[in-house]
Amino acid sequence: MFSKMATTVHTPFVLLLFQIGVFSLPVSQTPQESPTCGYKSCHAIKPGMLNVHLVPHTHDDVGWLKTVDQYFYGARNDIQHAGVQYILDSVVDQLLKNPDRRFIYVETAFFYRWWKRQSGDMQDTVKQLVDEGRLEFVNGGWCMSDEATTHYSAVVDQMTIGLRFLNDTFGPCGRPRVAWHIDPFGHAREHASVFAQMGYDGFFFGRLDYQDRSRRKASREQEMVWRASESLVPPVADLFTGILPNGYNPPEGFCWDQLCDDPPIRDDPDLEDYNVEDVVSKFLTVAQEQAKVYKTNHIIMTMGSDFQYENANLWYKNLDKLIRYVNQKQVNGSNIHVLYSTPSCYLQELHRANLSCPYFPMRIDDFFPYADAAHDFWTGYFTSRPALKRYERISNSYLQVICNQMEVLGGPTSRNGSFGVGNSDTMKKAMAVAQHHDAVSGTEKQHVADDYARRLANGWTQCQVLVSNTLAALSGSSAPRVYCEHLNISVCPLTESSTFDPEVMWVFRRLCSTSLQVVPVSQATVVVRRDRGYAVNELLFQVRAPPMGYSTYSVSLLQKGPPPASPFPRAPKDIQNKVRAWRFLKVTFDPETGLLSSLSNLETQQTVRLSQNFYWYNASDGNNKDSKQMSGAYIFRPNSSTTFIISKTAKIETVQNSVVQEVRQWFSPWVSQVVRLYADSRVLELEWTVGPVPIGDNMGKEVITRFDTSINSSGIFYTDSNGREVLQRRKDYRPTWTLTQTEPVAGNYYPINSRAYIKDEKDQLTVVTDRSQGGGSIQDGSLEIMLHRRLLHDDVRGVGEPLNEASDLYPEGLVVRGRLLLSLNPPAVAANTHRPLAQEVVLQPLITFTEGLLPPNTSLPLDFSGLQTALPPAVHLLTVSQWDPDLVLLRLEHQYEARDSKEHSQPVTVNLQVSPLPSTFILLTGLSPSYRCAVCLSGEKPLPKTKGDPSVWEVTLKPMEIRTFLLRVRLR
Amino acid sequence: MFSKMATTVHTPFVLLLFQIGVFSLPVSQTPQESPTCGYKSCHAIKPGMLNVHLVPHTHDDVGWLKTVDQYFYGARNDIQHAGVQYILDSVVDQLLKNPDRRFIYVETAFFYRWWKRQSGDMQDTVKQLVDEGRLEFVNGGWCMSDEATTHYSAVVDQMTIGLRFLNDTFGPCGRPRVAWHIDPFGHAREHASVFAQMGYDGFFFGRLDYQDRSRRKASREQEMVWRASESLVPPVADLFTGILPNGYNPPEGFCWDQLCDDPPIRDDPDLEDYNVEDVVSKFLTVAQEQAKVYKTNHIIMTMGSDFQYENANLWYKNLDKLIRYVNQKQVNGSNIHVLYSTPSCYLQELHRANLSCPYFPMRIDDFFPYADAAHDFWTGYFTSRPALKRYERISNSYLQVICNQMEVLGGPTSRNGSFGVGNSDTMKKAMAVAQHHDAVSGTEKQHVADDYARRLANGWTQCQVLVSNTLAALSGSSAPRVYCEHLNISVCPLTESSTFDPEVMWVFRRLCSTSLQVVPVSQATVVVRRDRGYAVNELLFQVRAPPMGYSTYSVSLLQKGPPPASPFPRAPKDIQNKVRAWRFLKVTFDPETGLLSSLSNLETQQTVRLSQNFYWYNASDGNNKDSKQMSGAYIFRPNSSTTFIISKTAKIETVQNSVVQEVRQWFSPWVSQVVRLYADSRVLELEWTVGPVPIGDNMGKEVITRFDTSINSSGIFYTDSNGREVLQRRKDYRPTWTLTQTEPVAGNYYPINSRAYIKDEKDQLTVVTDRSQGGGSIQDGSLEIMLHRRLLHDDVRGVGEPLNEASDLYPEGLVVRGRLLLSLNPPAVAANTHRPLAQEVVLQPLITFTEGLLPPNTSLPLDFSGLQTALPPAVHLLTVSQWDPDLVLLRLEHQYEARDSKEHSQPVTVNLQVSPLPSTFILLTGLSPSYRCAVCLSGEKPLPKTKGDPSVWEVTLKPMEIRTFLLRVRLR
Repeated sequence: MFSKMATTVHTPFVLLLFQIGVFSLPVSQTPQESPTCGYKSCHAIKPGMLNVHLVPHTHDDVGWLKTVDQYFYGARNDIQHAGVQYILDSVVDQLLKNPDRRFIYVETAFFYRWWKRQSGDMQDTVKQLVDEGRLEFVNGGWCMSDEATTHYSAVVDQMTIGLRFLNDTFGPCGRPRVAWHIDPFGHAREHASVFAQMGYDGFFFGRLDYQDRSRRKASREQEMVWRASESLVPPVADLFTGILPNGYNPPEGFCWDQLCDDPPIRDDPDLEDYNVEDVVSKFLTVAQEQAKVYKTNHIIMTMGSDFQYENANLWYKNLDKLIRYVNQKQVNGSNIHVLYSTPSCYLQELHRANLSCPYFPMRIDDFFPYADAAHDFWTGYFTSRPALKRYERISNSYLQVICNQMEVLGGPTSRNGSFGVGNSDTMKKAMAVAQHHDAVSGTEKQHVADDYARRLANGWTQCQVLVSNTLAALSGSSAPRVYCEHLNISVCPLTESSTFDPEVMWVFRRLCSTSLQVVPVSQATVVVRRDRGYAVNELLFQVRAPPMGYSTYSVSLLQKGPPPASPFPRAPKDIQNKVRAWRFLKVTFDPETGLLSSLSNLETQQTVRLSQNFYWYNASDGNNKDSKQMSGAYIFRPNSSTTFIISKTAKIETVQNSVVQEVRQWFSPWVSQVVRLYADSRVLELEWTVGPVPIGDNMGKEVITRFDTSINSSGIFYTDSNGREVLQRRKDYRPTWTLTQTEPVAGNYYPINSRAYIKDEKDQLTVVTDRSQGGGSIQDGSLEIMLHRRLLHDDVRGVGEPLNEASDLYPEGLVVRGRLLLSLNPPAVAANTHRPLAQEVVLQPLITFTEGLLPPNTSLPLDFSGLQTALPPAVHLLTVSQWDPDLVLLRLEHQYEARDSKEHSQPVTVNLQVSPLPSTFILLTGLSPSYRCAVCLSGEKPLPKTKGDPSVWEVTLKPMEIRTFLLRVRLR
Repeated sequence: MFSKMATTVHTPFVLLLFQIGVFSLPVSQTPQESPTCGYKSCHAIKPGMLNVHLVPHTHDDVGWLKTVDQYFYGARNDIQHAGVQYILDSVVDQLLKNPDRRFIYVETAFFYRWWKRQSGDMQDTVKQLVDEGRLEFVNGGWCMSDEATTHYSAVVDQMTIGLRFLNDTFGPCGRPRVAWHIDPFGHAREHASVFAQMGYDGFFFGRLDYQDRSRRKASREQEMVWRASESLVPPVADLFTGILPNGYNPPEGFCWDQLCDDPPIRDDPDLEDYNVEDVVSKFLTVAQEQAKVYKTNHIIMTMGSDFQYENANLWYKNLDKLIRYVNQKQVNGSNIHVLYSTPSCYLQELHRANLSCPYFPMRIDDFFPYADAAHDFWTGYFTSRPALKRYERISNSYLQVICNQMEVLGGPTSRNGSFGVGNSDTMKKAMAVAQHHDAVSGTEKQHVADDYARRLANGWTQCQVLVSNTLAALSGSSAPRVYCEHLNISVCPLTESSTFDPEVMWVFRRLCSTSLQVVPVSQATVVVRRDRGYAVNELLFQVRAPPMGYSTYSVSLLQKGPPPASPFPRAPKDIQNKVRAWRFLKVTFDPETGLLSSLSNLETQQTVRLSQNFYWYNASDGNNKDSKQMSGAYIFRPNSSTTFIISKTAKIETVQNSVVQEVRQWFSPWVSQVVRLYADSRVLELEWTVGPVPIGDNMGKEVITRFDTSINSSGIFYTDSNGREVLQRRKDYRPTWTLTQTEPVAGNYYPINSRAYIKDEKDQLTVVTDRSQGGGSIQDGSLEIMLHRRLLHDDVRGVGEPLNEASDLYPEGLVVRGRLLLSLNPPAVAANTHRPLAQEVVLQPLITFTEGLLPPNTSLPLDFSGLQTALPPAVHLLTVSQWDPDLVLLRLEHQYEARDSKEHSQPVTVNLQVSPLPSTFILLTGLSPSYRCAVCLSGEKPLPKTKGDPSVWEVTLKPMEIRTFLLRVRLR
């Protein structure tokens, strides 16, 4: 299926130098590293014995109960005792005391903060520790990302920032060889795929379903090979995956951190309570027990936990003793050998075992949902904090679409221009931090959620300066630019102002295809539904903007003063026109209830019965005989499977003009929806508004919308993984193990990052979401999506707060608005719609305004595109971003899965030479370019002599492939 | 009053080499130290500015909530997070990082444990830190002793062990220059006197009465000169004394330990919550406020607290920043200078200020009782855990009287002889640990109290081997020796045994005078009052033993089998013979009540009305409108001043023989007493038994006995200070400040270590106690002593347990037995009785047994004395102990105060040359010989040529003087 080359060669970029394919790096093919680090720095093992690899480590959340900076400095220790600056101080000190000691560090967001405050001497010392393999980085992203609620584009970015820092700072010895997701609450296949493509040799995690774990222990299948893509050619996405024995904690009784109370080793016989024999004997038992549930004669023990090693001496002093006294037993016949180790040294030994025998099973599904007990499904966080989840998603869009692009187009002027100093780093780092598994996941404390949002807002501010600088340079106009960041809730002070006069509107796009957008702006005023803003009307019209470019429109006011009432026809409450249809779609409403009743694709002439309404589950308050588990930020546990309907009927109002037909539905004072059908769109838009969720009845509520259709889905539905490949989900079933279902709703929920669908032979109804949400298909033909949660209890997983979002700004509770985009297609071609649609939602256009008319003699082009031609439909421009003053980072991907589409699931070739960028390029590659580039740049090659041959710059992408390049750019 | 020399020259010891007088060392006369340590290592100050001396320190209790070894290792961190091994590891590491940093360490019991586990390299490193004054020892005793409940002899010993270790290990630079009692709960004048005599340059503490503190702050009198003796010639016992500003904690908001939650200094402007300006500004305010309550332009801040600096990096990293940023303000006109400092560096600056102006006031009284609020008098611990207090006292006696003496007499054989390997070190260290301010004080948790007792018991075991070895060597008999440690509760398995046959009894004495003792031993059986033991009778007879020697008696059984009933006459219940009199005393009982009614001294023909009974205060449970304070281990707070009488009458029984007249009184099932009048004694003995204190009524009880007399005491009574000088106490009054009395009973309680008395012109009634107790004189002519406490609530000072002593061994509550010894004398001569009497009680004889008759041809002397002649009555042999294989430590003291006695309060001269010890001597001196010896030994002088002149060996002692010598001994 990969053999056929696309017929057209697209050439958006210029001057390919060379390019290395993305590949999964086998253990034995480690790239050259200094001889003292990496696998060569591992301690000797004893072949005939059970080798116990002790891995000293700390798990440092990039925000959770405290903000990332509070964690770094050790502020607010009244909330939680944790100070990462001290951890790194202490670990370095202790590593220096004994060359046998090892430590791994994971979260580069923290390491970076620490590093930049160190003296040159200290930096040299640390470099030496890294060069000698005594300090080893694992994972190495800016954070340890959440897997259920992140979008792959942001994950790739955050990994890039972290790995690049390590590469720039430490070179090859700083390169992480294993991915390490010890805490995320379930594991996405796309994450494993990305890690494999980044060249990680293995992946370790701590959490999986307790039933899955139990049978894996019994069958010694806790270590496996995860085939993480159904499209990429093996072994590209194959990744060794290991389940750690105690989550990520040490064995019980052997935690010697200051945060633990386990007895230290007391080896002075002159003092009371000498306990060496006791400790050694307990340890030998623990090791033997653990060896029973793993296959090789190597076992790993994670000696550390959350924010441990702040005083590393406690750990190392006792570990030194443990190793000494346990190994001393060998002279008496003990066959257990303990050593300081790292995950990669452990992995190396597994790899060696693997050479002689194909030990490890294969896994192809993912690790969702995660349950740690029968009624404890971690499926609530798929939806928790929906407003933060949306803000993270549009911030990503803003960074990708506008900020990165403007930085590349504007060059140095973008960062220091007529509007001052701006940057994209603030947003990049804010986004990277937001990927953390207690950030966008919604499982942090309220004040920390506020901090993530504040960081993103700071990113916007910095980006806006940068964008203004670039636009001023490109256009020659330095008129103040207004961004109207609150257009998502239809608030824009500029356009709402009564003094509003002619203005210029700019629409920016990033996607490498053109399409229609509807831009709500006010005339003199903007309509605001519900209680935000003061405007009463809105201006709707179609715009078209080129890929990686912008279009400019002028808006003039024809008549001052309040607009005439109801510029568009509004229907009375009882629905008059119950059928809405336009060129591509038809939608009908039940005149009795005001609810949707059917959806038709007019092109394919297919129709499904489709009703939709809003419901809530009563969140468990733990008062239940089966289990005391309460619903909370992590865990979704409805008190019963009963859904409570908000209203059987909707009050409706209709609006229609040349651009859009709207049906506005009111279900209750806190639930409403606008159903929109655009003239030229194949997608039905449902803009829902939920909140403040009432809790006066002392019942926590988990609000869903549910689509009930005539589709014969047979207990199966589909969800995407991190916005990319799609996995099949079957009710009350797990592909690789026999499930005992104990939670009929929560146990059937899965993360929806960008889309979900149900289908039968004929019809596929796809719902594209505007943020990550949880959802399920509890009945055949039905698809439900959780929109909002307001809970009254903590779920006892550490966050210590009920998920009850309210503040000074919204004292009665948070109102959330969002969009669901529905398409109905035959299954075989459905991807042709939902793939580009989902990218469209992820990478939204930006609209900005300047007041006053454009000067008639302006040299400003009204339209501009950074691409010479649009990329072919199968190719998505994943990343374009300034790498350093000379280099631009480019990532292209094939956005279709192999099985997606007869039309698009083909290899496609693009030529990088054809581009509007006025530059020459040097191209280097690797999905995460930091390490690849470190390798390549060290032997940087000259420009090819064969400049005239355009085929040098051709890049072929197979389905789901991601290719990374660094382009050297010079302004023409 | 010191001018007159005693007429007789006593010469117990041989061969004086030289001797240096004990003196208080002025700051300017520091003995030679290496040029880089001591006062020379202090950082420069800025003369024109307010200099803030930051003193990094940790306060490490030698047992409290955990045992000393649990604290050392950091075991049982579930009780309290504290691990001293890590503190020392960490502090040394951090000191090495910045030569400006300073640290002081206090408790040598911990330092010693740490030191002996360090490598040679580490020891060298630490030596260098000490040599450079970066690590400074303060106080330096084995522990920080309690001041209210310790006996000076044990305090001197524990200081000696600690200081000797420092001297042996570090030489002059290890010498502590300041005493540092930051935590003890009130301060004894005798402690200050001992410190002054040991050559400390100053003394700092943290706790004093809140009213005293308040007026001292207002008048800037928080620093003073304490004249700590009314007998020693100034400035021998003058000691600079400073009250620390925040107890021993840092100022509020500036605690950067891992145990604290104060915000760290966040000085990276790229991160959120940059707070340098805020911290600096707060610090400047704090410093200015503190400067207002001290006199000089130097202030001290104690930057540390309980078990802090386990991760010293947290402290130092922030202190480094604080110093940098605060001092940076000087360029903007700030006149505050912050520096790392130590108490001695601070003291040096005060001394310099003092040179120009006699700033500091004089203090002559002591700092008891301590109250930290109106109803929070720390006067309960004077009595808390009376059994532990007694065990500590008899252990001291055993160490001093037997163990030390036998070691000196036995030489190396004592430590390794026919009974195996024994030592005195175990007991010395156990005793040293027991002096800690949460040990003998009774303010530790129950399991820790058990640990102190266990340590003492181990000490006894080791000593018994040593004693057996020596006696076997001296006597040529290696018959097994039985010690009958439970004679205090009249239990001795050997003598109680029905197979008991002829045995030899040995009576050991230490006091340098002869006197009578009554030894209860069984015939075939031993009588046991109450419910312990099985014996029904006892054998009483007089023994006489020489000072520092022993006497041997044979006991033969004349008739086997149970003894005849009532070998002594017993009176019926209604008292027949209500007057008891012998040669020196007469005592009468009220026939109606069975209580004492009068006491007469037949020699002086004086009589007082004296009634005595037992009462209890109802311990406050905090349910009180004035304050929620409860009575607890520390705090005595009766619910009201009402005393509840246990019984208005006593059932009595009388016993009389040629040795003793006894009246046995039963007040209740849990209170009884035996009143004993010995034939040749000037002292009336009251042996009380209290317990188990009933708590079935849910009322905590504080049991007292009260003497009500006809003495016109005018609101005044007297108590000793640590068993030495006596202070006058006046009801509702403090000598140096105006008291607002808020607790009429608890606020008039004082520690009684060895004696208390009331008197008028004619009569002085003195009560000598057998352990430390609390007491007061609440009414004129009355003296009450608290005997036992059983409480139901914790008093919220950290111990976290009610003082409710019960265990598997005594499930119904602890029974305590003790003795009060009464004497009635004219005030002018009373000391002639109570001084030797109190020493007699402190240094009790030991009785041991061997079975079988002595062989007729034995060469064993039946009597033996280590002294050639008895010392003169004014001279007390405070210490005689093996120092090292060649040297014996000797301390002599004048045991009378200057005002005590016309007869004895005179200078007295002894000649050390006359001694029964078969040896030659080299004599070195200093109360705490470690440092003095370090100084002296470095210039050790040869034996004087004038051997023939005995006056070379004469030592003159003035009242209350203590002189220390090291004697070089060679067996003849």
